[in-house]
Amino acid sequence: MTGESEKSWILMATARSPTNIAVIKYWGKRDEELILPVNDSISVTLDPDHLSATTTVAVSPSFEQDRMWLNGKEISLSGGRYQNCLREIRKRARDVEDEKKGIRIQKDDWNNLHVHIASYNNFPTAAGLASSAAGFACLVFALAKLMNVKEEYGELSSIARQGSGSACRSIYGGFVKWAMGNNPDGSDSIAIQLAEETHWNDLFIVIAVVSSKQKETSSTSGMRESVQTSALLKYRAETVVPSRVLKIEEAIRDHDFASFARITCADSNQFHAICLDTTPPIFYMNDTSHRIISLVERWNQSEGTLQVAYTFDAGPNAVMIAPNRQAAALLLQRLLFYFPPPQDTDLTSYILGDKSILQEAGLQSVEGIEALAPPPESKDKVPRKKFAGDISYFICTRIGSGPKLLADENQALIDPVNGLPK
Amino acid sequence: MTGESEKSWILMATARSPTNIAVIKYWGKRDEELILPVNDSISVTLDPDHLSATTTVAVSPSFEQDRMWLNGKEISLSGGRYQNCLREIRKRARDVEDEKKGIRIQKDDWNNLHVHIASYNNFPTAAGLASSAAGFACLVFALAKLMNVKEEYGELSSIARQGSGSACRSIYGGFVKWAMGNNPDGSDSIAIQLAEETHWNDLFIVIAVVSSKQKETSSTSGMRESVQTSALLKYRAETVVPSRVLKIEEAIRDHDFASFARITCADSNQFHAICLDTTPPIFYMNDTSHRIISLVERWNQSEGTLQVAYTFDAGPNAVMIAPNRQAAALLLQRLLFYFPPPQDTDLTSYILGDKSILQEAGLQSVEGIEALAPPPESKDKVPRKKFAGDISYFICTRIGSGPKLLADENQALIDPVNGLPK
Repeated sequence: MTGESEKSWILMATARSPTNIAVIKYWGKRDEELILPVNDSISVTLDPDHLSATTTVAVSPSFEQDRMWLNGKEISLSGGRYQNCLREIRKRARDVEDEKKGIRIQKDDWNNLHVHIASYNNFPTAAGLASSAAGFACLVFALAKLMNVKEEYGELSSIARQGSGSACRSIYGGFVKWAMGNNPDGSDSIAIQLAEETHWNDLFIVIAVVSSKQKETSSTSGMRESVQTSALLKYRAETVVPSRVLKIEEAIRDHDFASFARITCADSNQFHAICLDTTPPIFYMNDTSHRIISLVERWNQSEGTLQVAYTFDAGPNAVMIAPNRQAAALLLQRLLFYFPPPQDTDLTSYILGDKSILQEAGLQSVEGIEALAPPPESKDKVPRKKFAGDISYFICTRIGSGPKLLADENQALIDPVNGLPK
Repeated sequence: MTGESEKSWILMATARSPTNIAVIKYWGKRDEELILPVNDSISVTLDPDHLSATTTVAVSPSFEQDRMWLNGKEISLSGGRYQNCLREIRKRARDVEDEKKGIRIQKDDWNNLHVHIASYNNFPTAAGLASSAAGFACLVFALAKLMNVKEEYGELSSIARQGSGSACRSIYGGFVKWAMGNNPDGSDSIAIQLAEETHWNDLFIVIAVVSSKQKETSSTSGMRESVQTSALLKYRAETVVPSRVLKIEEAIRDHDFASFARITCADSNQFHAICLDTTPPIFYMNDTSHRIISLVERWNQSEGTLQVAYTFDAGPNAVMIAPNRQAAALLLQRLLFYFPPPQDTDLTSYILGDKSILQEAGLQSVEGIEALAPPPESKDKVPRKKFAGDISYFICTRIGSGPKLLADENQALIDPVNGLPK
């Protein structure tokens, strides 16, 4: 290892990785240590412009230990999940040479070099939007770039998996399958890209971040309890999911929105059914989640075909997938009719992400929302009660691309001089 | 047929029948017409003093058609469910003689005689407390008495079943099993008494009637949709339930409260899981139901043994079963801490049924409730938020006896002179 001055140099890599939302759910591990699932899962990668993690990894002979800062706050790296990722990437590290900076690191040097990691989510970490998926995918991707790891994406996904199961699916854009694999060592439990984001880029996604004061069961302990106590989980994993996986792969291939939506909704509901079948039961959805489902189901039913799909992860937030912008605009009209922004909330802080959809929905102002007519399908069926305050905000987004290296050093989260978060 | 004056006589019978709460749930029919279930179910009969239907059936040659009044309001008897019960009982009718009144009805006369039926529930019909179970059991029982039907209770249960499935279990007191049977004609799909109410009469039951504005899916259409669309229902019915039935029968036999409670909670949760696995999903429990479950689960967990069991039917109301009055008093303290009566509600209209339990709970006044300390297990775990108004009232009751004939004519709901509801 050589550098301008033995102690002063810092080498960095910065990457941005998307989050993803499963349409066939991952719930249950067959191996807790290696994070090997009981069934395949399939996800849609979300646009990193709206939901992603950015991570800078830096190495320097002056660093005395591995350290990490998440959203500006130092966190411990002692957990097995971080250690797994660091160990597996270090194992595959190669010679690195930065001619401009005059830095040369040899393969074996990596074992004696420490890293500083700074990561930042462009969306609230606590909102239950799979921040760990984006985070671990980004960590692994950035470390791999820094350490000149040449392994294929499939292998990187298998390393990210050991940080957080669903992180393996964030290694690709578009539509991604996490194949559960068969090998006891987990080497074939990897993510595979089913289709790029451009394959079906009409899809439009609306996320409702539901206000919740309830403390939720973490997905790690929740799925452990489900595996141990649910009488239905094994049947779901072995019998129901395999056929759904085949069918939704076909639906994605054929742009068959009706099938895609039908399976997506059914699988989200079945995942929550398994949670309810757990002892003690786990409730991730609340009354607001139920109201959103009812709103979508009534609309679907009145039209006779599926207008939008919904899916819920381990929390009350709804992720709704519309076949195109037009349907998304109609969806937003319905959502904003029932869940208008609370008083004194302006629209730009209530609708995040791709705000241009508001124009298509004819909703450029709070007054426009107040003037919304009730959805035609609501007639005589439900009291047209409104629920202002039950949703914190909406994020409008679309299907997105996989991890990317950010070459511009200005985007780095670590100061290239002192090696600490900017 | 003879009487004092051919047109003027009226003969009546009045009965009272309990409602019941399933601990192994009935959800799904294999035959919609005959009401044959996809699995056995097991229930506890509730004390008719607190939850029952009273029904008077009257016959007179002056009656021009079959008519029925429910809670004072005339309702149509044209539905297949009422017709099934009337037809099956008439088929089994025998000679009747009332010497005092000088009335003689011969077996074949019953086909030409019309009945008037008046029924009354001593609890709110709309509260989702299995009013139809008590009602159809009572109708069948009273008609059988009036028409001198000699068939055994098992056969009566099979007739009540054709009115409302769970009604067959209200033909007995104590612990009752509805055996699904095998015969296509339903003749062996009958209720069986597992144990009398005296077998385990320490049990104490607290029902929380949850305020709900949401319109609920009827259980008839709900279970039809589950049978048609849930990917898990068949597995539950064929694989999970049979072993649970065996185990809970053992638990009842042995007064093994821990097993009884564990299976009761798990089966309630699994029934609601199947509802959630239905397309479109059915939500019977709401946030208040979830809070009650969490309260009980936290308590059970902190004690290390099951203190009480909970079970929910097709609605948000919680039925909680405590092993004895002492545990029920501790349960009430917890429930009333989180769900105090709304302002200006007095305790006697908030706690119905066996109010003597309030004394054991040290809660004879609203002030006593306000002074309640938080349950010890709540410490540092959840915000001690209170939810006044989320529960309409509680009913305190116990395990009860089966249908009974009320010999006192003063208890009849029909005027013996004009044949109309009093």
